[in-house]
Amino acid sequence: MATSRSDKAVNLQEKLNRFDEHWSPRTVAEFNGHDVMVVKVRGEFVWHHHDNTDDFFLVLKGHITIRMRDGDVHLGPGELFVVPTGVEHQPFAAEEAELLLIEPSGTPNTGDEATAARRLTI
Amino acid sequence: MATSRSDKAVNLQEKLNRFDEHWSPRTVAEFNGHDVMVVKVRGEFVWHHHDNTDDFFLVLKGHITIRMRDGDVHLGPGELFVVPTGVEHQPFAAEEAELLLIEPSGTPNTGDEATAARRLTI
Repeated sequence: MATSRSDKAVNLQEKLNRFDEHWSPRTVAEFNGHDVMVVKVRGEFVWHHHDNTDDFFLVLKGHITIRMRDGDVHLGPGELFVVPTGVEHQPFAAEEAELLLIEPSGTPNTGDEATAARRLTI
Repeated sequence: MATSRSDKAVNLQEKLNRFDEHWSPRTVAEFNGHDVMVVKVRGEFVWHHHDNTDDFFLVLKGHITIRMRDGDVHLGPGELFVVPTGVEHQPFAAEEAELLLIEPSGTPNTGDEATAARRLTI
């Protein structure tokens, strides 16, 4: 008889409840060489771009603006946007927001290897 | 002055409201050679596996079970699961459910090239 694997489900809110830090993504799953991450954000991040990857944002709670040189994208819950490779952007959230991010494993979140944070799995 | 790009935000529920068919994923964005898709499901899909890709499921509404040979994974809203490459699985939903899927562009949803549906962008 099959054993239950229901413990394998990743509950995003349960993962988000485990930490408070902003701009510190936590890996919750892996997918085709990418990290699937949850993150809490508030305020503005640095302007940056990624040379070798698109940048996937899905808002789970709250609202964010992704500022780009040719205009802003505003996202609320259940809305996603993919910043294309090479496009400069600055995420901003007036109030705390919660996001799902997907990036190739090992991608520094500023696009700059020198400031790459270690990977945090939760 | 920057023009608004708020039309670039992808609202998942708005996309889902545009169609009724089950098991017919619609591409809403592209990310690193993958299609980001929304799909409505009800009943059971065929048992299948993918030789060359993991299979990403995030439940947006309702509940699904991903049956696998060594046990089931039950997912509700805000829960995700990645079926590893090569692992046989059968998605099942007793009632209609809505999902976000991510697969490499061109991946047939049954894992079988012969039955690959054409890509539907929405």
